[in-house]
Amino acid sequence: MMKKDELPHCPVATTVQMIGSKWKLLIMRNLLARPCRFNELQRDLEGISQKVLTDSLRSMETDGIVIRTVFPEVPPRVEYSLSELGESMRPIMNAMEQWGKDYKVQNS
Amino acid sequence: MMKKDELPHCPVATTVQMIGSKWKLLIMRNLLARPCRFNELQRDLEGISQKVLTDSLRSMETDGIVIRTVFPEVPPRVEYSLSELGESMRPIMNAMEQWGKDYKVQNS
Repeated sequence: MMKKDELPHCPVATTVQMIGSKWKLLIMRNLLARPCRFNELQRDLEGISQKVLTDSLRSMETDGIVIRTVFPEVPPRVEYSLSELGESMRPIMNAMEQWGKDYKVQNS
Repeated sequence: MMKKDELPHCPVATTVQMIGSKWKLLIMRNLLARPCRFNELQRDLEGISQKVLTDSLRSMETDGIVIRTVFPEVPPRVEYSLSELGESMRPIMNAMEQWGKDYKVQNS
């Protein structure tokens, strides 16, 4: 969670600061569907390196968007899910999905 | 304009492919307000390098989102504006703006 004085003045820049990267946007897309394990995300996000996925998830966790849950199993199972704050970004992703759909129709 | 077979299957990924970077999102925010000259963009996008701004604008131009207009003055004036396709991304930016506003209220 960022402190108020760390936030950009512009609200769009505030949002961009949190999810303004290709991979964070695609991680969010996946987690909006359902909680995922690290390996599931890595398999689905073609081309992402382990380091970038780790860093992106950690940064989203620090920002309070993603929750990391460790289930006490043997071996321990780790799952990533969206917090309520992360869930509240759904309208952004819906708008992106709609735009992508329209674009694909226009170009088909 | 991308060809159909170059587009990802997922509509969100299609959108992310075009504006899924911090700087492209901020360029779009600025151009949604009004057409801008290169120097105006560079001044407003604090921290962007000349190369990244050039590359981002060129990529958005190739994708048909941004229009580059050269006005035959002395010296020639170059202005960047959104195409109709770029304008159609406004709902995405509106959703980002709304989320940023809500977040700032919650954290104030």
